[in-house]
Parts: sequence; structure tokens; C-alpha cells
Amino acid sequence: MADIWLPNLLTNTPQEGYELAVKLSRAAVRITQSNPAVRNDLRAVYEKDAEALIATAAVVATNFQTVAAANNYWRN
Amino acid sequence: MADIWLPNLLTNTPQEGYELAVKLSRAAVRITQSNPAVRNDLRAVYEKDAEALIATAAVVATNFQTVAAANNYWRN
Amino acid sequence: MADIWLPNLLTNTPQEGYELAVKLSRAAVRITQSNPAVRNDLRAVYEKDAEALIATAAVVATNFQTVAAANNYWRN
Amino acid sequence: MADIWLPNLLTNTPQEGYELAVKLSRAAVRITQSNPAVRNDLRAVYEKDAEALIATAAVVATNFQTVAAANNYWRN
Amino acid sequence: MADIWLPNLLTNTPQEGYELAVKLSRAAVRITQSNPAVRNDLRAVYEKDAEALIATAAVVATNFQTVAAANNYWRN
Amino acid sequence: MADIWLPNLLTNTPQEGYELAVKLSRAAVRITQSNPAVRNDLRAVYEKDAEALIATAAVVATNFQTVAAANNYWRN
Repeated sequence: MADIWLPNLLTNTPQEGYELAVKLSRAAVRITQSNPAVRNDLRAVYEKDAEALIATAAVVATNFQTVAAANNYWRN
Repeated sequence: MADIWLPNLLTNTPQEGYELAVKLSRAAVRITQSNPAVRNDLRAVYEKDAEALIATAAVVATNFQTVAAANNYWRN
Repeated sequence: MADIWLPNLLTNTPQEGYELAVKLSRAAVRITQSNPAVRNDLRAVYEKDAEALIATAAVVATNFQTVAAANNYWRN
Repeated sequence: MADIWLPNLLTNTPQEGYELAVKLSRAAVRITQSNPAVRNDLRAVYEKDAEALIATAAVVATNFQTVAAANNYWRN
Repeated sequence: MADIWLPNLLTNTPQEGYELAVKLSRAAVRITQSNPAVRNDLRAVYEKDAEALIATAAVVATNFQTVAAANNYWRN
Repeated sequence: MADIWLPNLLTNTPQEGYELAVKLSRAAVRITQSNPAVRNDLRAVYEKDAEALIATAAVVATNFQTVAAANNYWRN
């Protein structure tokens, strides 16, 4: 992963910030399991598994906290 | 998801903030599983599963932290 | 849920804040599973399940962080 | 639970703060399962269950964050 | 546990802070299961269980947040 | 682990900060299970287990919160 995939945490809107939180969540999976074919197989399983989907939502929520704080909650 | 579903994190009251936290929690599931029919099937399962409901409450709690901080806890 | 159940996050004491955290935790379950009879059935199960009780305590702890911060930790 | 069990979040030392975090963690269980006999039965199970013990440690860690922040990390 | 095991949260370096976070994580297990023989038996199980190890890492991460904040992230 | 593996929490970019969060997450596993052969065996299992991968992502997300705050979100 020599390429730049996370240049900064600032986004224009909360919605873009949420999308960045999703990206951050997926990055950890990609770093731990670098084989795209295996990730695709796993995805076919967990996207139909309620507990896995909720666990994914928990990761996104934690990353959204970080992105939202970085953007000062888009208050200004 | 080209439409705007998260214009900002500010709400008038804590209760509206809580509702936004619920919306944020569901957004992650919707982004990961984009098929509404599959989501409905999963929902029929997890809404009767105590552990899944508690896990959902954990996600909402994390998102509510973010929304509450964004609103400066509706102190003013 | 048109009624007002969360007018604000301020409480007089930490203990009242803790009770509010419990209320916030239950609200997510109530919003996800709106049928009180189903909730009662589930409660009969999870209140005798150690893992579910600990998971509930985790949700309360997260919500208590929010309430405590909102009240500036009842320092003043 | 009409008695006062949480008068404030301030403690003299980090160690007392950690003990308060343990107390906060147990309070959620006590509020959800008010029957002491059932709690004792459950305790006999989870205190020998590695996953339950680790889940308990997670709750204590979250509550310790709150108590430590309330005490300004006992810096002064 | 009458002895002093947590005199303060300040450490000289991030790495010592991380070690303190590990210590805090183990303290909750020790307080909940005070029998060292039982803890040793459990440890033999969970140190070979991927999910338990990841759950342990989650607890350490939460405690490291607290220690890092207490030390102002060792910025100065 | 007498060597220095965590000299500080500052990084030049968010991406390097994310890599540090991954490193912090693995450190807890390494400290709990010090045998590299056992860790390799476990890794072969969990890198093909969707729930374990998501749990790993949760740990990274928590550690990234800490690193991001330490770096003041790389705002300056």
C-alpha cells in the first residue's frame, strides 16, 4: 500500500465525512487480509449476516467520531 | 447514494439528535448491504434477537456521542 | 414516538445521569423493536444471560460518557 | 434503588477511580437484573468464562475513561 | 487489593503508557476473577483463541486512549 | 520487549497515523501471545473469518482515534 489513500481527514460536508469513515473501516480489513479474492468471498457472507453488519456499523461509528472531531463537526 | 442524507450534525433538541444517531447507525448497514429486500429479511431476524438489539444500541450510543458533541450537548 | 422523552441531557447528580444513560440505552432497543410484547419476551431471555448483561453494561457505559460530558462531570 | 450510590465522580487517586469504574460497570448489571440470586448464579458462570471476563474488562475500561476525565486524570 | 498498584497515569514515554494500558486491562480481569489458578487456566485457553486475543486488544486500545489523554499524548 | 517500538505518537500524515494504529493494535496481541508460531497459526484462521476481521477493524478504529487526537488531526 505505497499509494496515498488517506491524504487528510478534512471533508466539505458531514456526508463526505461519513463516506471517509466507511473508507477507514474498510482499510483495516484490507490491510489485514490483502487478498481481494478472499475479501470478496468474505463479503458475500457478512453482507447477509445481521450481526456482522451491525459490527461493521460499530466500526464506522468509531471512525466517524474521529473524522467528525477532525472537522470540528463541520460547525463553521 | 448521490442524494444528500446528512446535511449537518446540528439538531434543535437532544431527542432529535438521538434520532439522527439512529439514522447514522442505519446508514452504515445500508451502505454495506444496498439491497433493501435483503435488509428487510435481516431485520426480521435481528429485531427478535436480544444480542443483535443490544449491539444495535451500542452503535447508536457511539453515534449519539458524536452528535451530542457536535451540538455542544445542547447546553446553550 | 412523537412524545418528548429526552428534553435535555442535564441532571442534578451523577446518579441521575447514570439513570439517564440507562434510559438512553433502552431507547435504542425500543426504537428498533417497537412491539412491547416482543421486548418483554426478549428481556426474559437476556436478563438471565451473562454475556447479554455485560453487553448491556457496555452500552450504558458509552451513554454515561455522553451524559457525564454534557454535565461537565458534575464538577461545579 | 432509592439510595445514593453515586454521589460524585471525584476520587483521590487513579486507583480509587478504577474501583469506581468497576462499581459503575456492576451497576448496569444490577439495574438490568435486580434479583441478587440470579446475579450470583450468572457470576458463577462468567467468572470462569474468558470471553465474558474480557467483555467485563471492556466495560470497566469505558467507565474508567469517564472517571479519569472527570478527575482531569488526577494531574493536579 | 489493599496495595497500591495504580499510583498515577503519567508515564515517561508512549511505550510505557502502552504497558500501563495493558496493566489496566488485566486489572479488571483480576478484580472480577480473584483466583490466580482460575486465571491461569483461562489464560491458557484465550491466548490461543483469535477472537479472545482481538477482544483483549480492544480493551487495551480503550485504556490506551485514557493513558494517552492523561499524558497529553506525550507531546511536550 | 525491551526494545523501543513506540517512541512517539506523532506522524507526518494521516496515512502514517493509520499505519501506527494498525501497529498499536497488533502490539496488544503480541504482548498477550508472545509465541510467533502460535500467532501465525491464529492469523491463518482469523484472516479468513469475517467477524474476526471486523473486530480487528474495531480495534484499529479505536487506536486511530488516539493517534489522530495526538496529532491534532493533522490540521496544521
